[in-house]
Amino acid sequence: MGRRYETISFLSDYGHADEFVGVVHSVIRSIAPHAAVVDLVHDLAPYDIRAASLALSRAVQYVAPGIVLAVVDPGVGTDRRAVAIEVGEDGEGVLIGPDNGLLAPAVAMSGGAKRAVELANVAYQLVSPGPTFAGRDVFAPAAAHLAAGLAITELGPEVDCYSLTPALIPLSHVDGDALVAEVLWIDRYGNCQLNVDPADVEEFGELVSLRLPDDQVRTAHRVTTFAEVATGRVGLVVDSYGLVAIVTDRSSAAEALGLHPGAGVRLSPAR
Amino acid sequence: MGRRYETISFLSDYGHADEFVGVVHSVIRSIAPHAAVVDLVHDLAPYDIRAASLALSRAVQYVAPGIVLAVVDPGVGTDRRAVAIEVGEDGEGVLIGPDNGLLAPAVAMSGGAKRAVELANVAYQLVSPGPTFAGRDVFAPAAAHLAAGLAITELGPEVDCYSLTPALIPLSHVDGDALVAEVLWIDRYGNCQLNVDPADVEEFGELVSLRLPDDQVRTAHRVTTFAEVATGRVGLVVDSYGLVAIVTDRSSAAEALGLHPGAGVRLSPAR
Amino acid sequence: MGRRYETISFLSDYGHADEFVGVVHSVIRSIAPHAAVVDLVHDLAPYDIRAASLALSRAVQYVAPGIVLAVVDPGVGTDRRAVAIEVGEDGEGVLIGPDNGLLAPAVAMSGGAKRAVELANVAYQLVSPGPTFAGRDVFAPAAAHLAAGLAITELGPEVDCYSLTPALIPLSHVDGDALVAEVLWIDRYGNCQLNVDPADVEEFGELVSLRLPDDQVRTAHRVTTFAEVATGRVGLVVDSYGLVAIVTDRSSAAEALGLHPGAGVRLSPAR
Repeated sequence: MGRRYETISFLSDYGHADEFVGVVHSVIRSIAPHAAVVDLVHDLAPYDIRAASLALSRAVQYVAPGIVLAVVDPGVGTDRRAVAIEVGEDGEGVLIGPDNGLLAPAVAMSGGAKRAVELANVAYQLVSPGPTFAGRDVFAPAAAHLAAGLAITELGPEVDCYSLTPALIPLSHVDGDALVAEVLWIDRYGNCQLNVDPADVEEFGELVSLRLPDDQVRTAHRVTTFAEVATGRVGLVVDSYGLVAIVTDRSSAAEALGLHPGAGVRLSPAR
Repeated sequence: MGRRYETISFLSDYGHADEFVGVVHSVIRSIAPHAAVVDLVHDLAPYDIRAASLALSRAVQYVAPGIVLAVVDPGVGTDRRAVAIEVGEDGEGVLIGPDNGLLAPAVAMSGGAKRAVELANVAYQLVSPGPTFAGRDVFAPAAAHLAAGLAITELGPEVDCYSLTPALIPLSHVDGDALVAEVLWIDRYGNCQLNVDPADVEEFGELVSLRLPDDQVRTAHRVTTFAEVATGRVGLVVDSYGLVAIVTDRSSAAEALGLHPGAGVRLSPAR
Repeated sequence: MGRRYETISFLSDYGHADEFVGVVHSVIRSIAPHAAVVDLVHDLAPYDIRAASLALSRAVQYVAPGIVLAVVDPGVGTDRRAVAIEVGEDGEGVLIGPDNGLLAPAVAMSGGAKRAVELANVAYQLVSPGPTFAGRDVFAPAAAHLAAGLAITELGPEVDCYSLTPALIPLSHVDGDALVAEVLWIDRYGNCQLNVDPADVEEFGELVSLRLPDDQVRTAHRVTTFAEVATGRVGLVVDSYGLVAIVTDRSSAAEALGLHPGAGVRLSPAR
């Protein structure tokens, strides 16, 4: 027997229009009724591994101790591996999902992989009429059996942690007096998180010039809160995850500036 | 006293823009705090009994033992009956909802109705200022009181199980060398589930001709996974519920082919 | 030590596209794993304090005993206060959120504020890299620590209950033979709740004339259920919260009549 876990934190691109999320909850509750399932987010863009891996890496530092179940899986049914990855001391935490890069940033933020297994043991999977719903048939049962005390090594053979698919998180870089950055995430309010650490733009001063993908140039004010941004103006805040974000007050900066995830933004000191 | 139940699995067309789902959870928690409520799905199309009954029939084989609460109820406040239906041995499971066909496929998949009562006893209902929110005032209290150990016969008089409204699930049929089928469900990814068993198209071979509602004809490849479908091509998979579905790779087949739930599709061997 | 609470009912404008709701759940579960979090609603319009305060006032009479956590907070990071407000006897209930009017109608419906504190004690807050996610860093920890038995006075200094921001709920008024009203809420079905008590239109009889914002005049029938409204006609029901609502049968009255929250409607007896 392994240790038991009380919480399974669950992220997917299943959306809410279908019963996918509910069926995964049902499978877990049938196997491990003692475990609480905390929904992190499910309305991620379908198939968008990058967006999902970023959401997971933002959330993972806050999740309750236990298991993380993450499913964004365009390669379902192919030979992409299904894995469970231990992090922390003595199996303190386990991340479960497809080995397609989705888990990698969260694993890194949790101190790196200590041990990993491939979910190959069909004794802990549901018999499936078709191969397309691995969340229900492979991942959820693995999470639930682990939560109920199954040793991780029962789920399948160990795999080399160095063979796990790495993350593809874009880094910003300096080009002359400018910082070439990228929009990592646009939240529901239209705030645009950049891959920029506040220290990287410290010397730029209070006014920062933003060159947008359409070559439009806007001047942004460094501010501490949304409310400091005047109507029609653009602000740069340190957001709740410690990164620099482009914002406007009570409106969508993404819409105002035509930005989308992955868009390139060039920051430099304003004249 | 009846038996207690630990889980109430909940499906509705309430959506997430209003507090309807949250209020139903609140009512249940106030009456039966020991019970877990598992949300199956709530973003079904408003009033769409057929879509909801199909979603419920897909989910019901996976729900945790206990009570199913399902509310899609365009006839709320009229003389349509509110019912609780026992299935399985000794009240192993109970389905609660309006008697409008919504529950029928799930009841059938659970082995048929063993006993049914009409929710007529106002002692187990909330006093309501108006008659339009039966989920809160009638169905949720019934589910919660049952979960807490109330005998089902306390909820109201028994009704003849044969008087329950039957399901209206369309069947496919053979016409010459073709199979005349219908789209049952389009999921968030745009996969189009048909009312077709894989055995029905076994003899059609690897290439299947699809005549669509606009008389467009497309050739679909029988595949095992989405990833096998070439970009711009159409595939037929056995989906996760064991039915044949029209799919494309990482894109919406429904959008590509102009399909919607209920659309007719004629399958035949491709020349 | 204060009393413990078993339930935290949670409302916000966080939506479901991001991990905000899931992170708040995670923070609560890490601090108070015994507490259940009931999601009331999160898909409220961003920044819309009025709509959120109305949703909360509708839901609050049904929430399970315990804590209400409500976050719609356009002034996050400014000097708007974060507060916890006791209602009922001996801290029977506590409402937590920004002091911007959001909580006021729910507090009033719960019998008024008995005691209030400002959430100023950083010992019960998360260390935040930026000031924009008070739901995670300030409000959720406060709710969770209270649930776990912390005395409310530990969260910060008491504030005068009379200094709390009041609600701004519009009242209807009589003008000649007409009642000048306003749309409070449009639900997912398109039903338009008015700030009108059934008693206020009792004497208008079965047929009520509605003058809409575009000066269109429609005759509405007083009905008891949606199904009584003929196709293409307009009905007035007493809705599930005891207020008069404009409805159509199985279609959106809001769409048919061009109504939105806050729209003015003039009711008078039809000739």
